[in-house]
Amino acid sequence: MLQDKNPSKTDISKLGEFGLIETLTKDFKIKNPRTVKGVGDDAAVLNFKDKETLASTDLLVEGVHFDLAYFPLKHLGYKAAVVNFSDIYAMNGTATQLLVALALSNRFPLEAVEEIYEGIKLACRLYEVDLVGGDTTSSRSGLILSPTVLGEVDKNKVAYRSGAKPNDLIVVTGDLGAAYTGLLVLQRENETFKANPQHQPDLSPYAYVVERQLKPEARKDIPPLLKELDVQPTAMIDISDGLSSEMLHITKQSGVGAHIYAEKIPIDPQTILTADEFHISELTAALNGGEDYELLMTISQKDYEKIKHRREFAVIGHITEDKGAYLITQDNQKVKLKAQGWNALKS
Amino acid sequence: MLQDKNPSKTDISKLGEFGLIETLTKDFKIKNPRTVKGVGDDAAVLNFKDKETLASTDLLVEGVHFDLAYFPLKHLGYKAAVVNFSDIYAMNGTATQLLVALALSNRFPLEAVEEIYEGIKLACRLYEVDLVGGDTTSSRSGLILSPTVLGEVDKNKVAYRSGAKPNDLIVVTGDLGAAYTGLLVLQRENETFKANPQHQPDLSPYAYVVERQLKPEARKDIPPLLKELDVQPTAMIDISDGLSSEMLHITKQSGVGAHIYAEKIPIDPQTILTADEFHISELTAALNGGEDYELLMTISQKDYEKIKHRREFAVIGHITEDKGAYLITQDNQKVKLKAQGWNALKS
Repeated sequence: MLQDKNPSKTDISKLGEFGLIETLTKDFKIKNPRTVKGVGDDAAVLNFKDKETLASTDLLVEGVHFDLAYFPLKHLGYKAAVVNFSDIYAMNGTATQLLVALALSNRFPLEAVEEIYEGIKLACRLYEVDLVGGDTTSSRSGLILSPTVLGEVDKNKVAYRSGAKPNDLIVVTGDLGAAYTGLLVLQRENETFKANPQHQPDLSPYAYVVERQLKPEARKDIPPLLKELDVQPTAMIDISDGLSSEMLHITKQSGVGAHIYAEKIPIDPQTILTADEFHISELTAALNGGEDYELLMTISQKDYEKIKHRREFAVIGHITEDKGAYLITQDNQKVKLKAQGWNALKS
Repeated sequence: MLQDKNPSKTDISKLGEFGLIETLTKDFKIKNPRTVKGVGDDAAVLNFKDKETLASTDLLVEGVHFDLAYFPLKHLGYKAAVVNFSDIYAMNGTATQLLVALALSNRFPLEAVEEIYEGIKLACRLYEVDLVGGDTTSSRSGLILSPTVLGEVDKNKVAYRSGAKPNDLIVVTGDLGAAYTGLLVLQRENETFKANPQHQPDLSPYAYVVERQLKPEARKDIPPLLKELDVQPTAMIDISDGLSSEMLHITKQSGVGAHIYAEKIPIDPQTILTADEFHISELTAALNGGEDYELLMTISQKDYEKIKHRREFAVIGHITEDKGAYLITQDNQKVKLKAQGWNALKS
């Protein structure tokens, strides 16, 4: 419903693999001083000098992670890049290079792939990341995007998941649950559109939550802000599967427990209204919804003063010595957190 | 035909994504001093010190790059890793780390994924590469393997595709065309098997060519050998799409031409016999077959003495100032090389 249904069509196989790669990557400029050689050889050549190198990969599969009925291709390219960058920021690092492997069935014309690359290009430009490699091939069905991101970090700044200590504060950036309620809206509108193709959806009341789903942003700003504030997180992770699941990763890998206070979890008013409309609790969206790409971290209590006036951060709880991670509700019930997060293997 | 058709089956979705990753990666030992932290955080942490970092990615898609009817899963994992390592050796580097993104439909039980990882593990062990990350998710259909390899190289040793100079010698490692004739054998046996499931194929006369297809090896030995011999290739590329296509990459990117002599191209006797059986020329298999994962390089004439007695190398021609790459046949015909190589976008 959000796409031009009659785009011009150029058969990709006519270009050949190398022609395609040239077409797609010709506008990508290398900007990062860490990139010695980008696309066009057997491998990219990079130089991280005295920094540690970070590497991560996250797949996006059609029909599992996105539905092209409501996901514009350009947004998809953007999101595929951004969710990968997010993993680098979660290590307290800077994303520097991206490789994109892409498999697509021949129902996609060249213009479709160019749309995807437009989104990747935009993300690379805004996040100051060089596209340095990739592979494009056909698939028997569907579209699969497999980006790999590289980044850098000072050795003494790496934030693992395993460093949380008892009494550390639990901090999140931004607000949670919006991306999931945005997905609910898009799925509903898509069903309505299928039933009545004349239907013109009015998404304006849902602008924020829909944008959080279709065009998420990663927290590039947080690692430099932490540096500026002189705060080294004891542990950090990005929120891709929902707060519960990510909190459990930290407590498990750090060998600690956690108390999170329900009323402290930052949730946008539009998320609350939208969750209401779908008869779900906004807390469920925040805890189990995922795809917010905010950062969850633990910091030492001594650093509280440094962050307390910064609107980027919300303190939502603290780490406990007793293992087990709990949500403390407003009426003081203790509810065990479960990783009910979105599970890509179930579909 | 080469697989156990009644393996035990464990439903992957019962394990969940994190359980699956733990199950698959628990036996992978970190060995490379460049790896600071492998699997288990948002990103792997690596340290390349004074070396340049290399990065490359190559997708393998079911139904496009392999057919599970004749491709054992363990071999597939091995091949997916090795073809990626090959890109690093083609830069004259050392492969150091691997990330593997994997999408598979729920027709695959846990045991199938474990088989794939067995192959990846074996390749990592033999090639001394650390598995440091990945992503596993479902696909709507089929199996997709998307590995990304990292490597290192001394700054002054990088071999690009663009450095070939007129009068340089054109050199290949190993022999060519075997992997393609091996594929022809496997496809024929698979057709026979489909027509008559009682048919027991005898692959022993084709052992070498079939192994080149199912279990290719990358030339890890070549970069250190070149160093030992004090030979710096002026250009280098790995032969994944056939000699013609790779030669054209070098001549195009170097702005030169090439003469390759048909009788100098190293071809194994079994490749010749098998090609004969399929009524194709063994030269076609070598020029256009692909998947040999040998290295094609150009070297300065002054280095000829250093390599001439090494059985790893065959000099097959020379670089010309006139653009255009030609095969010189035994009867002295000049045939323009074309990139008829295997094109993954056509299927």
